[in-house]
Amino acid sequence: MNDSSATRITRGNALRPEDIAEATRQGTATASQDVAEYALRLGDDALILAQRLGHWISRAPELEEDVALGNIALDQLGHARSFLTYAGSAWGKNEDELAYFRREPEFRSAHLFEQPNGDFAATIARQFIVANYQYRLYRELTQSTDAMLAAIAAKAVKEVDYHLDHSTQWVLRLAGGTEESRRRMIAGFKLMWPYVGELFEDDPLTTRLGEAGVVPPSLRAEFDRAVAVVFDEADLEIPVSATATGGGRRGHHSEHLGLLLAEMQVLAREFPGASW
Amino acid sequence: MNDSSATRITRGNALRPEDIAEATRQGTATASQDVAEYALRLGDDALILAQRLGHWISRAPELEEDVALGNIALDQLGHARSFLTYAGSAWGKNEDELAYFRREPEFRSAHLFEQPNGDFAATIARQFIVANYQYRLYRELTQSTDAMLAAIAAKAVKEVDYHLDHSTQWVLRLAGGTEESRRRMIAGFKLMWPYVGELFEDDPLTTRLGEAGVVPPSLRAEFDRAVAVVFDEADLEIPVSATATGGGRRGHHSEHLGLLLAEMQVLAREFPGASW
Repeated sequence: MNDSSATRITRGNALRPEDIAEATRQGTATASQDVAEYALRLGDDALILAQRLGHWISRAPELEEDVALGNIALDQLGHARSFLTYAGSAWGKNEDELAYFRREPEFRSAHLFEQPNGDFAATIARQFIVANYQYRLYRELTQSTDAMLAAIAAKAVKEVDYHLDHSTQWVLRLAGGTEESRRRMIAGFKLMWPYVGELFEDDPLTTRLGEAGVVPPSLRAEFDRAVAVVFDEADLEIPVSATATGGGRRGHHSEHLGLLLAEMQVLAREFPGASW
Repeated sequence: MNDSSATRITRGNALRPEDIAEATRQGTATASQDVAEYALRLGDDALILAQRLGHWISRAPELEEDVALGNIALDQLGHARSFLTYAGSAWGKNEDELAYFRREPEFRSAHLFEQPNGDFAATIARQFIVANYQYRLYRELTQSTDAMLAAIAAKAVKEVDYHLDHSTQWVLRLAGGTEESRRRMIAGFKLMWPYVGELFEDDPLTTRLGEAGVVPPSLRAEFDRAVAVVFDEADLEIPVSATATGGGRRGHHSEHLGLLLAEMQVLAREFPGASW
């Protein structure tokens, strides 16, 4: 696998979902069952988040911010397409079949991603947690022994680096702004914090994957350190809150996912297999 | 105004709304009253369309199409920001004040842009009409005697060129696809066609602007020719339908705009002037 490969898979260089699909068709990139299950988790996280963020287009408090959240939504959608396309190579399914024709218990996203947007501060709290998690996850994943996962991560980490900066700036701005914006920032973190724990849970799959994936607990210490630096500057405290039950990686979801999927899947399901 | 200008206004080169705002602050780019009114029309058209298109993120029939419509929405939002920022220079208002704090009768968009999305084919019909209109409008506007309008148009026309190609491909695909997709494409054009006429109406403002703007009726013949070429290939006929009343350029809108604005403006209005 090098720069002149016919499948155009080059680490971090404009790897598109179409390239992955083409490599899959040629049989040069087929995910193992375990890798496919793992890619499905990461792809579902990004897909569900993209759906949530898309709602903000033209509804943020500033036009510039509309554009920023819209771009982040499209980045996440791009990552989702890559992960889902690769996951599908193990099962003979394409990205659209996986996105639009699975039922709720077949989705593998963590609960944080399906949380409702709430107000703008709650959305920023979710973004800040997600970006801190994804940035470290994808950075590690560029070292995966699975070349395709490494290539997808190499492209994604550059974009998530920007998402991290974006959400960090907003946390500082809201926490250090008016009394009202600070109150909302604190309330936003209180809403989202119960869903942090699930992101770093280990299970048999990630243990089996070993060097091909990233063992979630290994990311926690650096996540905590990075969050502490920003919270310190913003004079915020880690919310004291119960940890939510989790179970997203096994297909147990909150009531929010069903509604989200209904909206997301209706058009594709209305005419299954139609040649749009 | 040249390539090395401190205000970084170069024809067609990465002109950003922030650059326009900066030029406005420095007093090197202040729109005349007439130019501002004209820029407001073009900006409102793009802003309202962006809001409509944003709804499709994660809801289109294919993930690839989610990304495409999302990108088109963000392009339109970018054009809106530029036109509104420049318009605001005449009145000491910024883009956010114009987007979020005007009432419905103060919006100057044509009725086509506020039409509900309908199904995917109706959205594509609207896109095809809009892209054919905007492409020719912006191309002419690059010759405007107003340097800033010309610069905004030069950037926008490159992006709308892609929108035109995108919608053309979909019209051909839907019209030539299944019986159902063809039926829907025809129905989509029937829904949107009554709003074509308003786009090409002249009024005292565009007449006064002369070489600074584009006289709308001058674009009609080429619009009709370009549409005919595609309709011919798709075996479609121009819908026979009454022409809607229009009046958008004078602030008369359909019932749809009020709801759209309510959604778009609620967050910014909740805390007017707050330091988000």
